[in-house]
This record gives sequence, structure tokens and C-alpha cells, in this order.
Amino acid sequence: MKDPNPIDKLIDLMARLPGLGPRSARRAVLYLIRKRGQLLHPLAEAMAEVAATARECLNCGNVASADICPICTNDSRQNGILCVVEDVADLWAMERSGVFRGRYHVLGGTLSALDGIGPEELRIPRLKDRLSTERVTEVILALNATIDGQTTAHYIADQLEGRVELTSLAQGVPIGGELDYLDDGTITAALNARKRL
Amino acid sequence: MKDPNPIDKLIDLMARLPGLGPRSARRAVLYLIRKRGQLLHPLAEAMAEVAATARECLNCGNVASADICPICTNDSRQNGILCVVEDVADLWAMERSGVFRGRYHVLGGTLSALDGIGPEELRIPRLKDRLSTERVTEVILALNATIDGQTTAHYIADQLEGRVELTSLAQGVPIGGELDYLDDGTITAALNARKRL
Repeated sequence: MKDPNPIDKLIDLMARLPGLGPRSARRAVLYLIRKRGQLLHPLAEAMAEVAATARECLNCGNVASADICPICTNDSRQNGILCVVEDVADLWAMERSGVFRGRYHVLGGTLSALDGIGPEELRIPRLKDRLSTERVTEVILALNATIDGQTTAHYIADQLEGRVELTSLAQGVPIGGELDYLDDGTITAALNARKRL
Repeated sequence: MKDPNPIDKLIDLMARLPGLGPRSARRAVLYLIRKRGQLLHPLAEAMAEVAATARECLNCGNVASADICPICTNDSRQNGILCVVEDVADLWAMERSGVFRGRYHVLGGTLSALDGIGPEELRIPRLKDRLSTERVTEVILALNATIDGQTTAHYIADQLEGRVELTSLAQGVPIGGELDYLDDGTITAALNARKRL
């Protein structure tokens, strides 16, 4: 086959993005060509810039355009409270809620014997370092409520036991949630953690 | 607000693509950063290349990286048969079927009194030019089976009447289609155009 033309090449690459398939990639590329000035040019530049600058924050593992991310360098954030999350998407979700003013530590996944992912792969040693150097008083384990997430939380809790106050996110009925649509595990957790009015 | 960092800027731009919202844009950007070498770099380059080279084929209105598109310059395509489509997405859909070996003419939309789109806006004059210069014997009106599409097809048929053989795509039951799920109009069309076995 001869070298595909630039438009076909762009469609192929776009189709590899999560959430886009060949059909939506074609639609997106046509849209981009139509909006060349407003969208295609800026997008090409933004991608080149991110490709050139994006890296992991050496401190917490967040993605950033500098060696240390804006959250770690922000003086107005609370020192002493670390929120441990699985990956950057979780950090962003926490940030959108706007309620947490401490700092983060991104593990980069969960422990998984099957996939050969141990503590060394997960930035857990770096978490221990930070406890000593940053005078951390509380570690919030904000891992996903999945089996892997909770296994990892237990492992970290074991490791840090006695060195720092450990907390985890509350489990229960989500805001706006209807009991009829909740799984049994959530209802059990919400019932066990019931609060006096 | 201060200048957003490159990653936030990229998320904002990605969220403006059709088929992506803020949530899927964030997911796509994280994926891109993770696959920097395999995907982000090539995608940035492909976008820059398309932004620099993409234009409308001067002959048929297809998008291309040159003044004349590969279909118009392809000597092995049949001269004399023109397939008229509304936009480039329709041309691509026809090409995927692989069955049409003639050339195309992309109108760039449909006539619409409401939106002020008349024949001059639609590359219809250029279609008439091509009839004379390219010795066209058949024009296939492959416009969408919508009211606007069919209005436009009627207008073009009126204009070209007597100058060339005019055909349109057959209407009927789509391959794999179940009668129960088809609209009344399609069933009526399929019944009226029924074929002797």
C-alpha cells in the first residue's frame, strides 16, 4: 500500500483515542478541517506543546508541564494532609469537587499480583519518603472502591500503621442516588455506617 | 484567570470535538500523555500537516492535500459518470462501499431558503461547468433521503434536464433491515419499487 494521505493518517490516529471509533474519528476530522483556524491549528499546537512539556510531577506523580506540579508548588495548599489516589484522573476528580485543600500522591495504579505490579511499581516508596520529609499528619486513602483498590489501600495502611493518621473516603449512598438502583454492597456499607440524626 | 496550563488548554480544545465532552476529553488527554511517543507526537504532527495542506478540491469539492483530489486525478476512474453528494462524509461513505468507480461532485450542503443557501452557495454552477468540459453522460443524484436533500435533488434535476442522463439511488429496505423497525416512508418506497423475482 502506498503512503496514506495526511487526512487518512489523521483519521487513523484519531480513531485510536479512547471514546472515538473510525466513524466518529472521520466526523471529528471533517469538523477539524472545517474549523481549521479556530480548532485544528490551536489543537495541533496544544498537542505539540503537551507532547514537549508534559511529564510526571517528581513529587506526587500528577501530570504537569514542569518537574513539580502546580498543586505541589502552591503555597496556599495545606501541608500535612496527603490524599492518595490511584491515578491522575482520580486526582482531577477530587480537584473538581474543590473541597480538598491538601496535597496529593498519585500511585499510578493498584497492586496486582496477576499483572506483576508490586509496591515498587506504584510510587509507594516515594509515599513513605514524603511522610518523613513533609511532616504529614494525615493520609487519606482515596482509592477506588474496587477489590484491587481496597487491597492496595490495606497494603498501604499496613505499611504506614502507627506513623501517621490514616483515613479513607466515606462509603454510602451517592448524592442523588436511588436505593432501588444501588448494588447490595453499597446499601450494606451505608447501613453499617448509618448516622444518628 | 491566569493563562491555563497546556494540559488544561488541550482538554478544552479536545472537548470541542464532536463526539467528545469534557469527561471524554480528559480521558483522551490522559491517554495521549501516556502514549506520548506512539500517539501524541504523531497526532500533533498529523494535525499540523493537515492544517497546513488540507483544502477543497477545486474540481469536485472533496477535501484533499492538493488543489485537485486523488479521485479527480486518478486515471483509472471512469470518466463520464458523476455522483453528486451533499458533503465529504457522504463521498467517503460511497468510497467505502467500493462499488462506484466514477467521479464525484460535492455540493457542500443542501438548498435551504431558511438558511439563505441558494444554488450559488452550493457548487451547483461548477457542476454545470463540469457537464460541458468533462463529457459527462450520467449524473447520479446521491443526496440524502431527507426533505432538504430531495428538494435539492429536484432543483438539480430541473437544471440539468435534457443535458445528461439523471439517476438517483434506489430506495428500499436496507440490507439486514427488519421491517418492524423501518419507518412507514421506507416501507412505502420499498413496496412501490418492488421487483419481480
